[in-house]
Amino acid sequence: MSHNSFGHLFRVTTFGESHGPALGCVVDGCPPRIPLTAADIQAELDRRKPGQSRFTTQRREPDEVRILSGVFEDERTGGQVTTGTPIALLIENVDQRSKDYGEIRDKYRPGHADFTYDIKYGVRDYRGGGRSSARETAARVAAGAIARKVVPGLLVRGALVQIGPHRIDRANWDWDEVGRNPFFCPDAKAAALFADYLDGVRKKGSSIGAVIEVVAEGVPAGLGAPIYAKVDSEIAAALMSINAVKGVEIGAGFGAAELTGEENADEIRLSNDGTPLFLSNHAGGILGGISTGQAIVARFAVKPTSSILTERRSVDRFGHDVDVQTKGRHDPCVGIRAVPVGEAMVACVVADQFLRHRGQVGQSSPWPFPRI
Amino acid sequence: MSHNSFGHLFRVTTFGESHGPALGCVVDGCPPRIPLTAADIQAELDRRKPGQSRFTTQRREPDEVRILSGVFEDERTGGQVTTGTPIALLIENVDQRSKDYGEIRDKYRPGHADFTYDIKYGVRDYRGGGRSSARETAARVAAGAIARKVVPGLLVRGALVQIGPHRIDRANWDWDEVGRNPFFCPDAKAAALFADYLDGVRKKGSSIGAVIEVVAEGVPAGLGAPIYAKVDSEIAAALMSINAVKGVEIGAGFGAAELTGEENADEIRLSNDGTPLFLSNHAGGILGGISTGQAIVARFAVKPTSSILTERRSVDRFGHDVDVQTKGRHDPCVGIRAVPVGEAMVACVVADQFLRHRGQVGQSSPWPFPRI
Amino acid sequence: MSHNSFGHLFRVTTFGESHGPALGCVVDGCPPRIPLTAADIQAELDRRKPGQSRFTTQRREPDEVRILSGVFEDERTGGQVTTGTPIALLIENVDQRSKDYGEIRDKYRPGHADFTYDIKYGVRDYRGGGRSSARETAARVAAGAIARKVVPGLLVRGALVQIGPHRIDRANWDWDEVGRNPFFCPDAKAAALFADYLDGVRKKGSSIGAVIEVVAEGVPAGLGAPIYAKVDSEIAAALMSINAVKGVEIGAGFGAAELTGEENADEIRLSNDGTPLFLSNHAGGILGGISTGQAIVARFAVKPTSSILTERRSVDRFGHDVDVQTKGRHDPCVGIRAVPVGEAMVACVVADQFLRHRGQVGQSSPWPFPRI
Amino acid sequence: MSHNSFGHLFRVTTFGESHGPALGCVVDGCPPRIPLTAADIQAELDRRKPGQSRFTTQRREPDEVRILSGVFEDERTGGQVTTGTPIALLIENVDQRSKDYGEIRDKYRPGHADFTYDIKYGVRDYRGGGRSSARETAARVAAGAIARKVVPGLLVRGALVQIGPHRIDRANWDWDEVGRNPFFCPDAKAAALFADYLDGVRKKGSSIGAVIEVVAEGVPAGLGAPIYAKVDSEIAAALMSINAVKGVEIGAGFGAAELTGEENADEIRLSNDGTPLFLSNHAGGILGGISTGQAIVARFAVKPTSSILTERRSVDRFGHDVDVQTKGRHDPCVGIRAVPVGEAMVACVVADQFLRHRGQVGQSSPWPFPRI
Repeated sequence: MSHNSFGHLFRVTTFGESHGPALGCVVDGCPPRIPLTAADIQAELDRRKPGQSRFTTQRREPDEVRILSGVFEDERTGGQVTTGTPIALLIENVDQRSKDYGEIRDKYRPGHADFTYDIKYGVRDYRGGGRSSARETAARVAAGAIARKVVPGLLVRGALVQIGPHRIDRANWDWDEVGRNPFFCPDAKAAALFADYLDGVRKKGSSIGAVIEVVAEGVPAGLGAPIYAKVDSEIAAALMSINAVKGVEIGAGFGAAELTGEENADEIRLSNDGTPLFLSNHAGGILGGISTGQAIVARFAVKPTSSILTERRSVDRFGHDVDVQTKGRHDPCVGIRAVPVGEAMVACVVADQFLRHRGQVGQSSPWPFPRI
Repeated sequence: MSHNSFGHLFRVTTFGESHGPALGCVVDGCPPRIPLTAADIQAELDRRKPGQSRFTTQRREPDEVRILSGVFEDERTGGQVTTGTPIALLIENVDQRSKDYGEIRDKYRPGHADFTYDIKYGVRDYRGGGRSSARETAARVAAGAIARKVVPGLLVRGALVQIGPHRIDRANWDWDEVGRNPFFCPDAKAAALFADYLDGVRKKGSSIGAVIEVVAEGVPAGLGAPIYAKVDSEIAAALMSINAVKGVEIGAGFGAAELTGEENADEIRLSNDGTPLFLSNHAGGILGGISTGQAIVARFAVKPTSSILTERRSVDRFGHDVDVQTKGRHDPCVGIRAVPVGEAMVACVVADQFLRHRGQVGQSSPWPFPRI
Repeated sequence: MSHNSFGHLFRVTTFGESHGPALGCVVDGCPPRIPLTAADIQAELDRRKPGQSRFTTQRREPDEVRILSGVFEDERTGGQVTTGTPIALLIENVDQRSKDYGEIRDKYRPGHADFTYDIKYGVRDYRGGGRSSARETAARVAAGAIARKVVPGLLVRGALVQIGPHRIDRANWDWDEVGRNPFFCPDAKAAALFADYLDGVRKKGSSIGAVIEVVAEGVPAGLGAPIYAKVDSEIAAALMSINAVKGVEIGAGFGAAELTGEENADEIRLSNDGTPLFLSNHAGGILGGISTGQAIVARFAVKPTSSILTERRSVDRFGHDVDVQTKGRHDPCVGIRAVPVGEAMVACVVADQFLRHRGQVGQSSPWPFPRI
Repeated sequence: MSHNSFGHLFRVTTFGESHGPALGCVVDGCPPRIPLTAADIQAELDRRKPGQSRFTTQRREPDEVRILSGVFEDERTGGQVTTGTPIALLIENVDQRSKDYGEIRDKYRPGHADFTYDIKYGVRDYRGGGRSSARETAARVAAGAIARKVVPGLLVRGALVQIGPHRIDRANWDWDEVGRNPFFCPDAKAAALFADYLDGVRKKGSSIGAVIEVVAEGVPAGLGAPIYAKVDSEIAAALMSINAVKGVEIGAGFGAAELTGEENADEIRLSNDGTPLFLSNHAGGILGGISTGQAIVARFAVKPTSSILTERRSVDRFGHDVDVQTKGRHDPCVGIRAVPVGEAMVACVVADQFLRHRGQVGQSSPWPFPRI
């Protein structure tokens, strides 16, 4: 019940501060006999790690992961598989330049958790934001790499769909493009625009917000745990728990407020093979908190980093008015690296719901339904 | 861990179907010695109950609540107080016209949980939506009435700020107005507009979406449980768990994606009494998942009801293409009655976080901070 | 996380005071499509209910249960089945003679929870022990009746094996005998002895302790959730949570302290059908927290009721030395009615572990093991 | 909810296999501003570590602990304090002689978890018992060292009170003696007897059971979370989760079955300072699941190690009858090193209950009680 864990049957507990010796997580509840190596996890971590383009922080962290437990050799293949016991993952911090943070030791950056951590705990590791740093999300991405393997056929992908005032053109959406630009942007034209725009932001020492979309395909119909652990409710919690996220929506999202019942209805027809086929997906793949079998579509909004060069008015921890300017190394748009983090969180929710569904219901009903 | 509960130290478990004998909840973890009578709870239920205007369903449910446990007399006053043991609340269903629902027994309404409940469970109480009915939210409102009393000085209020394409003018915001119109609308002019617009929707047998804003004042600074039970993360889960909700945002919300770091920074200055004063509230009262002491501001989007008179294409549970038209009695805009439900969920989250903070930390640090 | 619930995927929340209007529970997580009627539950409640012999309290409670939610008709049979939604059960209190309890309103019975509830909460429903009354166990028995149906082939039976200094002779063990005497005693000779002995205790207004044994057959091998939710760990918690229980043991239990490794080893040989056969069961059906497929055997010790006619020295809540004598109606040996309660708790643990195992592992490995 | 965690507000998650690279734990929910260094934890680990006498396994593990997160410098003292964020502890495995375990890779030791882990998971790290090894308890002891600091004034001590047929004489009880012999035995005479007896067991390559008593002093009255998280219920679960434990009792324990109500009643009188004084402690410091303020007294029985030199009949994982003999390095009486483990588990339960009580109730009521 303490609060550095998420999930129920697939349960992840993270630990670590930005400038402490290490960070990591324990993944508890992963089913046994799933092939898993450090390389599987490293591949996902490498997508999130900093310093890969001029658009993210220049901190150099290899983010190398070690598996400390929970895997063992498969005698037939010589490869490694999960054993059903907790999988501990460790990532050592390497490039901590703690001297950068002398300035913010006593002064509260407006919009940052410095202030609230001090209010709550009366002590904090101020170096690089300590526990409130986005470095914690490396552990999420590592856990997500395992979650992806739990649900057969699951494919979770994310994309940056807006930076500041600039949105992608959905007509240009190309998943292959996501891996080709430093923004995880599915629209090549928009990516070019993002680069120009973000260069301006970066040079001014400013920062900007963004919107990310995560799409999970291959989610079996029937997952979800009404009433208070609906798939959408858990995705909302998971995404909102990511640093700097201020909004989450599913399917039509806030746009649904402007729709009529006629417009919003996702009509259904039988497909040629006799299974139900939805003719649209305003629901974002979830009805009544339960997956429909369509793609789950979630979006989340990330605010601009509070670490900027321009001075802002604030107070210090001794009770004085001060002005704060943040030098250090920071992401001008934390939304970019939030893409793999959002994917990881959705993957973890789906994996957890999958295991819970299998536990409570055994398996979904066949369709058409000879009810009972 | 099963999923009809929410909260941790202040924990609510709800039960009941729309057309079963009763619904209700068990509130576990309420601190002892808090004055509580059925009338306190009834007052909140009466704000949510149906049939109070032509803009909500005409089902007549008195929604009378009985307290079955967890309270006892205060010998000094003769009034009732909580005892620290679980408080069970019961609301009997009275006006069930189950015959209305013959049509939807076999046919899946597009956009409704009929389909997914059948997929998941292979059986469902189809009458009035069964467990997926918004009637379940009566239990939430009842629990919320208790939650409101747990945190001294807490004031949680909600308002309808958008119906379909029509938004309120924030310059007209008047909390007193909220109780004067059938929409919980804080803008008298907008309320008149809403009435006209919704009459049109209702007469067509159509439905429309809406946006609700909930504001919690008097939340002490320091509440929140990083990393995975941040106040905003839990509010997101709580609001997204309400029927028909498709989006949740905190403070600037999705608008934060378009802000620069300079714009988004909530600057701080010392007030005359030496306490820190935020000069804006883009954060919506939460930084790093922890309350700042400012008002918590959350908004959520509600989709249009899927029960409409216009025929929509669908399938039935035997595997045939069908057309569905929903007669019964329904809310043309479920967003209206979602206002007290949203308030209740936010109150429950704050009460729970308050107890957890008191448990883990004891009490917040004084400010200014002689850190350690 | 609040504490009137137990279980994870099969989760039971109880409520109610001895002399309040009602008690009951919500069973959340029961799989769908399991036949369930009130009569199924009533049968178990009738085994526990008071006033069935001169050896239990003379309070007359019909303990009639109503199912408020979570079941629906099976169209093929017309019978009722579970729907996967929470099952709320209600038992109204009928025979409250609250005047009996004036005496203990202010004075603390030695050995009773009166004192600690007042210390903890500062207020309590003193009538009949309020929430700390063994009446709460009716709700457990009701929940257990559902749990029994969750695991195919599960048979959970309990027996009284010791009252005060008198133990049964295990050579006489006859399950059929359990239903023939008022003690749930499997040894007809011992039952006669118990009757004589307990008449003496009862006439003196005294009380006496007891030991109960619960045996669960048909538990599939492989259930259990190492490390902190081992089957034995959860059974220990479940049984120790029953009123007046002071000890729990599994298999050889405390006797294992006197055994050598050679004696304690449950040797294994292949049976004729090729499955492993244990030649003894010191383990009580559990190794490393995981079920072996043998019968699970648990015993628990119940202390004598603290409500006795003999005066005992105590204090009152105003800070005075007093002498306390308890008149009211009480069980001279609460261990008797604890038999069906113990069964219910074990059934709930097994059901919950069954669902969790199915969730995490899917299904157990076949044996012999082509490991991986 | 997955199962390598225990506790709620003070929550411990352990990981690691006997012969993997490392084991450890994450302690989540520790209050901030508590002085804590690795040396504090090391002192407890050193009490548990193997190879300290001829009566425990000769495996040489330094069990050196590293704190990876959750602490920071106290600017006033230069010492370290907790920050309220998760405390990750790491202990690397050093002395793994995996070749010792070739024999038990395929054969199931009777009485060992080899069999059930294979049944459950279909794969296991067989080296040294893998996850089911008592090495996991090092992580518990480390967590317990932190728990001890959470409750002001708490003193938790344990002692070995029985080995095989030999029990201590309680008249000789001397806590100081516990640190002077290799058995944690509080009776010097018994310790000498234990040494002789255990030498015999050891030389035969046999093993023997034991009983441990844990006494927690300084537990505030009022802790405990009825109904299903009573202090005794949680202690029972915590102790039963330790490897090889088969029974748990509180206060008079199984002996209470033989007591009358008169004998079992812990009478109360006012002490000179006006507080209530219990005249005996059959209750073991807990009434109705809530602490009375007396010492909490718990005992647990540990079975003999299943790893013995004498051949036992068993089967292998290919489905053959085999005979098993375990060579490797093992404790002839695992009960000895279970003493600090039992202490740690009780300390963790008390710390967790302390935080939960503070959360739900704020603080206990003063006594005498102006009720309400």
